[in-house]
Amino acid sequence: MAVLHFHIDKTASAPLFEQLCHQIRHFAHQSLTQEVSRGAMAPFRLPSTRALSLQLGISRATVVQAYDQLTAEGYIESKQGSGCYLCPVSHSELNPPSSPLASSHAATPKPHAAQAKPLLVPGKADMSLFPHRQWAASVAHVCRYQPQQLTLCDDLFGQWDLRQEIANYVKYWRGIDATPEQILITAGSTAGIALCFRTLAKPKIQVGIESPCYAAIHRHAEDTHLHIDDLPIDNHGAQLPNANTRLAVITPSHQYPLGGAMHPQRRQAFIDWANHPDHWLIEDDYDSEFRYAGHPIPALASLDHHHKTLYLGSFSKLFSNQFRLGYLILPPTLITPFRQQLQSTSTSATVMPQQPLAHFLREGHLYRYLRRARRHYAERYRYLVQLLKERASRYGKPAIHHAGMSLVFHLNPDIPDKQVAERLSRHAVNPIPLSRFPSNDGEYNGLLLGFTHYSFDEIEKGIERLIAELS
Amino acid sequence: MAVLHFHIDKTASAPLFEQLCHQIRHFAHQSLTQEVSRGAMAPFRLPSTRALSLQLGISRATVVQAYDQLTAEGYIESKQGSGCYLCPVSHSELNPPSSPLASSHAATPKPHAAQAKPLLVPGKADMSLFPHRQWAASVAHVCRYQPQQLTLCDDLFGQWDLRQEIANYVKYWRGIDATPEQILITAGSTAGIALCFRTLAKPKIQVGIESPCYAAIHRHAEDTHLHIDDLPIDNHGAQLPNANTRLAVITPSHQYPLGGAMHPQRRQAFIDWANHPDHWLIEDDYDSEFRYAGHPIPALASLDHHHKTLYLGSFSKLFSNQFRLGYLILPPTLITPFRQQLQSTSTSATVMPQQPLAHFLREGHLYRYLRRARRHYAERYRYLVQLLKERASRYGKPAIHHAGMSLVFHLNPDIPDKQVAERLSRHAVNPIPLSRFPSNDGEYNGLLLGFTHYSFDEIEKGIERLIAELS
Repeated sequence: MAVLHFHIDKTASAPLFEQLCHQIRHFAHQSLTQEVSRGAMAPFRLPSTRALSLQLGISRATVVQAYDQLTAEGYIESKQGSGCYLCPVSHSELNPPSSPLASSHAATPKPHAAQAKPLLVPGKADMSLFPHRQWAASVAHVCRYQPQQLTLCDDLFGQWDLRQEIANYVKYWRGIDATPEQILITAGSTAGIALCFRTLAKPKIQVGIESPCYAAIHRHAEDTHLHIDDLPIDNHGAQLPNANTRLAVITPSHQYPLGGAMHPQRRQAFIDWANHPDHWLIEDDYDSEFRYAGHPIPALASLDHHHKTLYLGSFSKLFSNQFRLGYLILPPTLITPFRQQLQSTSTSATVMPQQPLAHFLREGHLYRYLRRARRHYAERYRYLVQLLKERASRYGKPAIHHAGMSLVFHLNPDIPDKQVAERLSRHAVNPIPLSRFPSNDGEYNGLLLGFTHYSFDEIEKGIERLIAELS
Repeated sequence: MAVLHFHIDKTASAPLFEQLCHQIRHFAHQSLTQEVSRGAMAPFRLPSTRALSLQLGISRATVVQAYDQLTAEGYIESKQGSGCYLCPVSHSELNPPSSPLASSHAATPKPHAAQAKPLLVPGKADMSLFPHRQWAASVAHVCRYQPQQLTLCDDLFGQWDLRQEIANYVKYWRGIDATPEQILITAGSTAGIALCFRTLAKPKIQVGIESPCYAAIHRHAEDTHLHIDDLPIDNHGAQLPNANTRLAVITPSHQYPLGGAMHPQRRQAFIDWANHPDHWLIEDDYDSEFRYAGHPIPALASLDHHHKTLYLGSFSKLFSNQFRLGYLILPPTLITPFRQQLQSTSTSATVMPQQPLAHFLREGHLYRYLRRARRHYAERYRYLVQLLKERASRYGKPAIHHAGMSLVFHLNPDIPDKQVAERLSRHAVNPIPLSRFPSNDGEYNGLLLGFTHYSFDEIEKGIERLIAELS
């Protein structure tokens, strides 16, 4: 069994809190390496916050803060009445096999040769962390006990059991109080936005959309023949809509693609704006599960006591984009209009994963997976930031927000992002240039970099290629 | 064991072929009733065509024709080398429980009271016929042996195994020769059409769409900012597009919503039209599995040797609308453009059902289910036609096409369909008025009636209500 030896240097420039976090993370990985030959690491009980503060001669508040942070990152699990534990981590979780599909594809005579994995692609879940066996067990459970629920659903809003579990999930993660009646299952978040536009917006009305924003939102607004009121992003987040706008779509937890959380004052201003009979606010909370420092930011919907905010969540970032499942949380007054809309257009969501996902949530598998993924992504996030600061600061500046599944590297004005991306793509390195996002003014010049589904080596290889193209 | 006693009346007005079919169907149901107390009926070997023709004193060709027809309807299964058998039919398949979901929902505290089942709703699969256990077994098979394939797919076109099975399926049912490379899995057929529009059509180009047509096709064309060239339906089917049209979407096997197959000359005219560098034809073959008389009509795509037809199939009519899975069969020259399109917009299809569906097809479950459903729907189709002819001929005329999952009842011009539908809806009877379909001229006045997922009693109840509102 590994033994804890922490050394805190009160004269160092790094804050005590950071030193302690660093050492506990380091210990978790070191003991993992020692335990690897014996299989998965057993849960390791940490000293109480009081005992550790006495041992190290630092304040107990610092220890509590560090434990909180590491709990958020997934290193620590606290068990009621029995203290805090370093989480069991299996070797395979930290060292994903190079091709998780290799074995199951062996018998398939596929014509395509495996292509080089494109580097720096943003926003993809690392599916080697995904608990495939537990998911298969949840699916198999439904096959055995509720086979008809794989194909049938008698409610246009989706399977009741899943809506109940989502109500618990958003209460836990996002502080949102919602009943299952308010929850509507959609085919991912863009299908959810398209449904909102069709239900709430008459053609020709004006909808406020962040500038820049996710391209699909812009496209759906155009498809629905809405006028677009561009909401530029300043240092508090998206600016308020103009007087004629009826509906606004915002990403207050983590602006896409720029990153950054909306300032509390701006949030309140949006809530006040929405408190008008003709106004509605759509909160697109596409990846709020991934924050790597500090406390989670509550969902804007949880603060809107006037019930004028529609909350949009997605499982795409947790499963894969091909999973195609998300949800809308509707204010109670909108339940009937959305039902009527679905009666004429039918539902977009596939029924098959719904009952299995309810089981998977109920069993706690998604929560455990999320904690693991958050820790994994946080390490890669820090590594990417470090590389950019150390090696690429001549060419631009990373936007540090400690959250999300992508990172913006703002390029110096004399380096056009599209040309860099074009040159990189010839080497299978595929960040997204900021200027490709729908934006009013085109003032953004930078690259949206991915890190979540790469090894440290792959991240470094991508950055080296980037630097080679920049210099 | 039941004994065959056929009586053929050569002086009757009904053709000998019809008489024979009727008696074999009757025998299948009668023997079922006798066998019910002993569980499922055993396969019953039919006399050879030669023996039966001698016994009844009719031509062997007539017997062959009757056996072919009943094979198509699913009453007869022929086994190589051992003759023809009446298919085993379980009691539950013919007498679906009133609420197949009742048991699995028992523990769920759902707030909604069960509503009356709306009658005469067109186009819905009878899911009480669906082999839920076999489907669950196929899903469980993937859970056990290929758990990762429930969430991962490394090809934007979909799982390779499924594409192979679909290639076999369309070869068998529709006479289409296609390789798995040409097959692209979509989230149902409307998602497939939207993808075609986005890939093949630049904004402002002209697309030919049948008038009337399925509303979602019209809507997607508008969303993609295409000009619409309405193709009126005459007695040969959709008329040819005008000179500036580049793309046409047609339903040659069974026009939606009017019913009826496109005349062979018109099919050839469309194939000739498409044989032009700038033209493409989309064949929407949404329910061709359901023909109740005569031979299956080959897919237009199987006749187009210039490879200018995109074929669009769907599993929605076989599973349920909530299954959300369909496929496109692309001409070889379009594989690359569609791949490029998907690379920028991602796939619409959910990965989860794909590998299970490949297994389900490979095991033959879908084929058996289809035969059973075809027979079941054919009986209801004939019953609905009979009721309309006997009781409603004063008010209009059914369009008899012996195919599909809905039937058009053309109303007399002085009876406006929307008003009738509006009055019926107050009694939970919900056919779709023809005038609600997108159509250039608005000349259609009638009701699209559903029959597939109803008992005979429910069909009769719906028609009685209809007649009460009409008189």
